[in-house]
Amino acid sequence: MPRILITSGPTREYLDPVRFLSNASSGQMGAALAEAALGEGYDVTVVSGPVPVPYPQGAEVIRVVTTEEMAEASQAVFPSCDGVIAAAAPCDFRPKVFSPEKIRRSGGQLVLELIETPDIVASLVAQRTHQWIVAFALETDLSREAAVAKLRRKGCDLIVLNGPSAINSAETAVEVLDPSGDVLGSRTGPKREVARWLLKVFRTYFDRSPGAGVS
Amino acid sequence: MPRILITSGPTREYLDPVRFLSNASSGQMGAALAEAALGEGYDVTVVSGPVPVPYPQGAEVIRVVTTEEMAEASQAVFPSCDGVIAAAAPCDFRPKVFSPEKIRRSGGQLVLELIETPDIVASLVAQRTHQWIVAFALETDLSREAAVAKLRRKGCDLIVLNGPSAINSAETAVEVLDPSGDVLGSRTGPKREVARWLLKVFRTYFDRSPGAGVS
Repeated sequence: MPRILITSGPTREYLDPVRFLSNASSGQMGAALAEAALGEGYDVTVVSGPVPVPYPQGAEVIRVVTTEEMAEASQAVFPSCDGVIAAAAPCDFRPKVFSPEKIRRSGGQLVLELIETPDIVASLVAQRTHQWIVAFALETDLSREAAVAKLRRKGCDLIVLNGPSAINSAETAVEVLDPSGDVLGSRTGPKREVARWLLKVFRTYFDRSPGAGVS
Repeated sequence: MPRILITSGPTREYLDPVRFLSNASSGQMGAALAEAALGEGYDVTVVSGPVPVPYPQGAEVIRVVTTEEMAEASQAVFPSCDGVIAAAAPCDFRPKVFSPEKIRRSGGQLVLELIETPDIVASLVAQRTHQWIVAFALETDLSREAAVAKLRRKGCDLIVLNGPSAINSAETAVEVLDPSGDVLGSRTGPKREVARWLLKVFRTYFDRSPGAGVS
């Protein structure tokens, strides 16, 4: 069966053994997409950051913590996949220096230097042979321009635009955009319903039944 | 009935609308302590950071996000309480500047200035009339010296020392230390059992039945 790779959840970037940078992504959209993809007859591999959400039984789940780990795990399974839905919210930045001891209050200011983490979607685009690749864009102002710019910068096929209200919520509102900036469709509702709708949009757009792949 | 204030879970300190500093505290110890305190006949108020863990029905639960909110909520309920168990893991630092727009990748480095957040336990100690106050110390090297130094700096009555392995785990290993550095006892096991044991240690130490208070 054709296989879809779904990235899901947040990543964490630790400053010291206790503290990290992250976001409130819950993995609920990734879990809903995994369920919808299984329902459409795909095999599913989920690469997930640390979330308590349960993934469907039928999915292979690879657990990671950092963005670098998510990138490595995704790159490793990518060649055996036919499509990618990058629904994760990996940290774009990580502390330059990790303190092996818990940083103590010192009464003053702390300057934290952050460096960028690998761009997972761009790295998969660079590595692709036949796979279609869909990314998610979380834009605080729901800007279509910013979402399409992100699609073009990463070189992926479609981008799903949503807003911060989707984070750690059972509901979401999405728009699917193609490289020309056209809106293929939009949908608001429970994540499970939106996920089923997205899978149908992707299948129609890529004009393929499971197993075909883009070539 | 005498009332115990339990702080629980992590706090979050946002850099922008999506990203925050936090830690993996799950609120499980706070929930276990709430259950144990209700079982001992106390009224319970929990001030909790964002965690999915369920708190017992009988507890009053106040939800907060940031350390400042946790401090304010705790200070507000403190006068009506007779004891405090500060089991939360609030962020000690927050970004000096909040970016109302999501910070974008720029290809370069990002310098994040962090400033210290309010010390919740120290603020309650400064405000106390009759309450006993127990803090938790998470020390990466399980250093008793560091835990007792923390107790003295904050001015609380007892400190519960544990290690990072307790974070987001169903089990924990704790030691209870008094201001002279004496170990009142130690216990390893499921958090619910350790919580019941801790409540008994606190009651014995403060030599009071519910309703008495320290004066």
